[in-house]
Amino acid sequence: MPRQARRAGRISPFHVMELLARARELEAQGRDIVHLEIGEPDFPTPAPIVAAGRAALAGGNVRYTTAAGLMPLREALAAYYHERYGVAVSPGRIFLTPGASGACLLALGLALDVGDEVLVSDPGYPCNRHFVQMVGGRPRPLAVEEDSDFHLDAAQVEAAWSPTTRGVWITSPSNPTGSVIPAGRLAALWEIVEARGGFLLADEIYHGLEYGCRCTSALEISDRVLVVNSFSKYFGMTGWRLGWLIVPPGWEAAAERLAQNLFIAAPTHSQRAALAAFTPETRAELERRRQIFAARGRYLYQALTGLGLRIASSPQGAFYLYADCSAFTDDSETFASALLEKAGVAVTPGCDFGRHRAGRYLRFAYTVDESRLAEGVRRLAAFLEDVSK
Amino acid sequence: MPRQARRAGRISPFHVMELLARARELEAQGRDIVHLEIGEPDFPTPAPIVAAGRAALAGGNVRYTTAAGLMPLREALAAYYHERYGVAVSPGRIFLTPGASGACLLALGLALDVGDEVLVSDPGYPCNRHFVQMVGGRPRPLAVEEDSDFHLDAAQVEAAWSPTTRGVWITSPSNPTGSVIPAGRLAALWEIVEARGGFLLADEIYHGLEYGCRCTSALEISDRVLVVNSFSKYFGMTGWRLGWLIVPPGWEAAAERLAQNLFIAAPTHSQRAALAAFTPETRAELERRRQIFAARGRYLYQALTGLGLRIASSPQGAFYLYADCSAFTDDSETFASALLEKAGVAVTPGCDFGRHRAGRYLRFAYTVDESRLAEGVRRLAAFLEDVSK
Repeated sequence: MPRQARRAGRISPFHVMELLARARELEAQGRDIVHLEIGEPDFPTPAPIVAAGRAALAGGNVRYTTAAGLMPLREALAAYYHERYGVAVSPGRIFLTPGASGACLLALGLALDVGDEVLVSDPGYPCNRHFVQMVGGRPRPLAVEEDSDFHLDAAQVEAAWSPTTRGVWITSPSNPTGSVIPAGRLAALWEIVEARGGFLLADEIYHGLEYGCRCTSALEISDRVLVVNSFSKYFGMTGWRLGWLIVPPGWEAAAERLAQNLFIAAPTHSQRAALAAFTPETRAELERRRQIFAARGRYLYQALTGLGLRIASSPQGAFYLYADCSAFTDDSETFASALLEKAGVAVTPGCDFGRHRAGRYLRFAYTVDESRLAEGVRRLAAFLEDVSK
Repeated sequence: MPRQARRAGRISPFHVMELLARARELEAQGRDIVHLEIGEPDFPTPAPIVAAGRAALAGGNVRYTTAAGLMPLREALAAYYHERYGVAVSPGRIFLTPGASGACLLALGLALDVGDEVLVSDPGYPCNRHFVQMVGGRPRPLAVEEDSDFHLDAAQVEAAWSPTTRGVWITSPSNPTGSVIPAGRLAALWEIVEARGGFLLADEIYHGLEYGCRCTSALEISDRVLVVNSFSKYFGMTGWRLGWLIVPPGWEAAAERLAQNLFIAAPTHSQRAALAAFTPETRAELERRRQIFAARGRYLYQALTGLGLRIASSPQGAFYLYADCSAFTDDSETFASALLEKAGVAVTPGCDFGRHRAGRYLRFAYTVDESRLAEGVRRLAAFLEDVSK
C-alpha cells in the first residue's frame, strides 16, 4: 500500500461532522434535533437565479467557459463593486472560481511559495490553515481576543512578522465569531503588510450579511490585495459552487494561466444562473433575508446572554455568534456532546476553529427560523439549569 | 505590490490559447476557421442528464452535499465499475469532485509531500505538471516515443526511480496522442511502482471513448491505486464540472477530511443530473456518439497519413491524433500559426505537451463533424502543397 502524504495526517477532522453524524443517528431514532451548527443559509436559492439556471440548461449546451469565466458576469461583479464599495475594479481582475474554495487555492497558488508562512487568526476558519498546507506553506495562527473583536490587528502582525512570513489572511465577517473588522483597523493592517512587501488575502464571503454595521472591502483600502468572495452565502447559492477572486493589477495573466491549469473553468450553468443575482427582484429578496437574519441574530444574542453565556458584541455579520460558556464548562467539546445527547441541540465546539481558549467557546449559527431558535434556547436553558445543579 | 510566487512564473501559457484568441479575431473579421484544436466534445449534454439537472433545480434547494458527494451517485459509479471493468469498488472509496481537476488535486494532496517527485510522460497533459507543482512536488517528465505508443513503461520507470520519487502519473487514453496503454504494460508498471512503495495515479478521463481496443482501468490491476475520472468527456458534461477520485481501501477517512477542506463539495445540481448518466437511454446515446467519434478518427487518420503526416497508430481513444509533421517542418508552433493565418485551420502545436521532439508534432482533435473535418483536410492539403513548393 502506498503511504499517505504527511499533509493528510495533519488535517484534523471537523468535530462538528461527528456531531452532525450523531445528530442524524438520533433523528433516525425519532429524536427531534435543533440544528444550530449548520454554516449554510436555510433559504433556497432566490427564484430569479434558479430560473436563469434552468434556462441555461434548456439547450444542453453546457460547455466550458474561459478560465476566468463569463465576461458579462465579471462585468456585473465590477459594477457591483462600484455600486456597493465605490471602487473601480476592472473586470479583467475578477476570476470566477469553483466556490470560494477555488478562489482561496488560486490566490495561494499565485502568492505563496513552499515554506512561506501565512499569519491567520485563532479562532478562525479551519480550512484556511489546510489550504496553506496544501500548497506547501505554513499557517501560523495568532491568538485573537474578544477585546479586539477576534480580528488580527496591525501591532500584533508587526510583532509576529518573521523572515519567512509572506502574508496575512483575514476573514471579515469572521467565521466563527461573526465580527466585522472596522475600516481603520483594516487600513492599519494593510499598512504593515505593504511595508513588508507581503500580501493581504481578504476573505469576504459573508459580506452583505451585515447588521447595524458596514463591511469594508479590502479593495477600498488598496487595489494591491487579494479578495475572495462567493455567491454561496449572501446570494444563497451554496450548492452551485461559484466564487470569485480579485487579483491586483498586473496579476491577470498569471491568474489566468493558473486558473486554466487548476480548474479549466467554474461551472457554466452556475455562472449563467448568477447573472440573475443582480436584478432588482433578487436584490429585494436578499435584503428581505438579510433583515430576517438580523432579527434572528438579535433574538439569539439576547437569549444566550440572558442565560449567562458571554458574547463579545451584538451580532455584526455572517450568521454566527461565538459564545463564551466558561461559566458552565471549560471543555466545550464535551459540553456540546452532552447538549446534543441530553437536550437535542447541536452546536459547534470552539476546538473546530483553533486552540486558543477553544474549550471556553461554542459557535451558534442562526440558520434556522425563529421558532426553532426559540425551541433551541428553551432546551439550552433547561440543560444549563441541570448542569448548574 | 506584493510579489508573486515562483510557481506562478513557472507556468507556461498554453500556446493553443493564443492561437484560439487569434482564431477568434480572424472569425470576427469574417474568416471561416476550422477548429481542430478543441479538447471538448462538440455534442451537447445528453437530454436525460439535462432533464435531470432541470428537475434538480426546480425547487431551488441546491444545498451542499456531503464532501464525498451523493451516495446514490457513488453507488451508481460502483455498479458501473463492476459492470464495465468487472471490479468491486466500495462506494465509500469513490469521491465526487469539482471536475477531474478537483480529483487530481485531491489525489496529490493525499499522496504527495513537498519536494516529492512524480514521474510523468513527455508529451503529456500539461496541467498534470502544474498540479504537482501546486502542492509543492516536482514533476519529472520522461520522454516517451512512438514505439512505446507514447506511454511510460516499466523498464523506463524502474531506471528513472530516484530516492525522491514518490509516484507515477499515467493518462490512458493519452492526451495528446489518444493512445491506450495495454493491460500487460499497465500491470508491469504497477509491479515496479508497488515494489518501491510508490503510488500510481491513473487518469482515465477518456475511458469509454475507445475504438477497436479496450481501455483497462488501473483498478483491474490493483485496488491500491488512485484513479481519476470525470463526467466531462465520455458522458458529455464538460461545463458541469463533475469528476471523481477512487482511493485505495483505508484512505477514505483522509480523503473525506481533505475534500471537506479543499472543496466543501462538488456542484449539487451536477451531481443530481449525473444520476441520469447510467440510464439505458443515455447509454444508447453515448454509444451512438462513440461510433461517430470512431468514424471521424478513422477518416482523419487516413486523410492525414495520406497527406504525408506520420501517425504512430490508428485511432485508439479520446478524440486526438498526434501527427508527426517533420516531413514539412521542425517547428510545429510556427507551422500551426501559418496554417491558421493562411489556411484557416487551427491545430495544437506539440510544445503545449512537453519538450521532447515537440517541434515535430501537431495534435489534431476530431471534435467537429465529418464535413468540417473534410474541409480542414482540404485546406491542409492545399497548404502543404504550398509549403512543399
